[in-house]
Amino acid sequence: MPLPDRNRRFLLARVPEGMPRESDFLLQEEARPACPANGVLVRSIWISVDPYLRGRISGIRTYIDPIPAGSVMESAAVGQVVESQTPNIQAGDFVTGMWGWQDYGAVDAARVRVLDPAEAPIQTALGLLGGTGMTAYFGLTELCAPKQGETVLVSGAAGAVGSAVGQIAKILGCHVVGTTGTEAKSEYIKSLGFDGALNYRTDLPYRQSLSQLCPNGIDCYFDNVGGELTDAAMQMMNFRGRVAVCGQISQYNDRSLDVGRRPFTEILVKQLRVEGFIVTRWASRFAEGRRQISVWMKEGRLRCEETVYEGLENTPKAFIGLFRGENTGKALVHV
Amino acid sequence: MPLPDRNRRFLLARVPEGMPRESDFLLQEEARPACPANGVLVRSIWISVDPYLRGRISGIRTYIDPIPAGSVMESAAVGQVVESQTPNIQAGDFVTGMWGWQDYGAVDAARVRVLDPAEAPIQTALGLLGGTGMTAYFGLTELCAPKQGETVLVSGAAGAVGSAVGQIAKILGCHVVGTTGTEAKSEYIKSLGFDGALNYRTDLPYRQSLSQLCPNGIDCYFDNVGGELTDAAMQMMNFRGRVAVCGQISQYNDRSLDVGRRPFTEILVKQLRVEGFIVTRWASRFAEGRRQISVWMKEGRLRCEETVYEGLENTPKAFIGLFRGENTGKALVHV
Repeated sequence: MPLPDRNRRFLLARVPEGMPRESDFLLQEEARPACPANGVLVRSIWISVDPYLRGRISGIRTYIDPIPAGSVMESAAVGQVVESQTPNIQAGDFVTGMWGWQDYGAVDAARVRVLDPAEAPIQTALGLLGGTGMTAYFGLTELCAPKQGETVLVSGAAGAVGSAVGQIAKILGCHVVGTTGTEAKSEYIKSLGFDGALNYRTDLPYRQSLSQLCPNGIDCYFDNVGGELTDAAMQMMNFRGRVAVCGQISQYNDRSLDVGRRPFTEILVKQLRVEGFIVTRWASRFAEGRRQISVWMKEGRLRCEETVYEGLENTPKAFIGLFRGENTGKALVHV
Repeated sequence: MPLPDRNRRFLLARVPEGMPRESDFLLQEEARPACPANGVLVRSIWISVDPYLRGRISGIRTYIDPIPAGSVMESAAVGQVVESQTPNIQAGDFVTGMWGWQDYGAVDAARVRVLDPAEAPIQTALGLLGGTGMTAYFGLTELCAPKQGETVLVSGAAGAVGSAVGQIAKILGCHVVGTTGTEAKSEYIKSLGFDGALNYRTDLPYRQSLSQLCPNGIDCYFDNVGGELTDAAMQMMNFRGRVAVCGQISQYNDRSLDVGRRPFTEILVKQLRVEGFIVTRWASRFAEGRRQISVWMKEGRLRCEETVYEGLENTPKAFIGLFRGENTGKALVHV
């Protein structure tokens, strides 16, 4: 089958207000790009959609400049090399990189990593063996540093990062509780080994539900969600507890002020440490993280469900689904 | 002059609701206590009142059990030994310990520290060379870890801890801004070398005042106050900024929920680290801290105003004054 000579790609049409809509993205076609000198031309197979992308299209500079309206949506992807102008990568190789929501990536060799499909399914380079897994592994072990026997609470626990955090905390010998948005997701995380699950839509008040699920309080809180769940979790933290702030998905589409309980008295009295992070902080250690996660995957102790959307044209739908709680585990687009 | 044979002492009469009142404390007399075996009998000269005591009389267990109603108010004090049953301390020695709001302390030898009055005025053992100085020194250097050229914001900057924090940050080469509650206090901290001062009663909105005073944003925030000042400071924090939560004096007497801006999105996006602390965490390093502060005091680079209340009977008044912003620098009772 000849290569399609058109490249479909999604541009950011406008900075979304509140919950993103499909019309915030524009599907456009152009000629298939040429292979860059010292680079590769890759045909996309899998595209990752991740909650952090909401921040990248907010129009606000955070740790990096936002993706401007009119640009191709950046995102992690996996594909197969169709042409190479670099000696270390051959046509046919599977690679991962950040070429985004499009059929083809024309990428500098330094900005892709070659995958071994015999080692693990190639799309795991977007999940447990990619940013998702690194976020869970380094965020938990470096910032929460849970000790055996401690209680770890993970919000957004049925998501890609949250489900990995909980499983790693179980491997480390902790009592692990997760929050989810449906009974099915609660059952899912229990099937992964979580000791308890709180359904944030029904298990109210949170403080009381958490007291039952965490009878010894909370030593580590890995937060993907924020809002009232966090208010309750902060009240349950133990002396010298650690909070890793990985995401605040409950707030991403809310332009009003995030008003609630200020946590500073709890932080003071219990000497808590609260730290936000972006996983690239540990980029120099990703090989180490992948090695460890790979071992746990092969031992069957760490796994991740996939929620797959078929077709590049459904990428915005997959992305928006993250904020509706549609996905269990890693949300992927199969191009 | 013979020693008075009566011991006046303040008991906690009841757990205060909101702002403490003098009637929450009961002045009682008993016979002068005996000198304990392996201990000393000390006559109080100086008594320290500190904001953290509000937490100790809240009726709530925090890092330690609260002072129960009917017990003597615990607090740091300095006095002179009138009788000793321990070989290493002689009558006439000056010592510091935690015997509290009373004329006499009957204290185990292991729970006092002998002072050298030739080294520094003895009451500095309650200020720069005591818990106050240790709180400023370790909280700032360990949790904020400011680098030369960075901007440090200190709230409650005219207080004992805040004024020390700001001076140490200046010694470390930082741009230092403090918040106070009066123009006189703002002038005072500028006389100590602070680069700027914000009067929280008049310099509204805080965000705008802080923008002018901290044109390069805030790298380190040493918080003694909390509330809306903290809301504004959090918005001004720079990437990888550090927040040391030392006190929340604006909230201590407020029994309503501390409602305001949740800081977690700022913490996430800027990868902030926020940590609460109680200075006893570094107790094993206090000798090191005193050595360093002593050097800076002798070099004239670190000093502390004293607000002195005369007479043991005025101890509750001195304590309550802390929450009314009456003191500049260290609040002390001269017995």
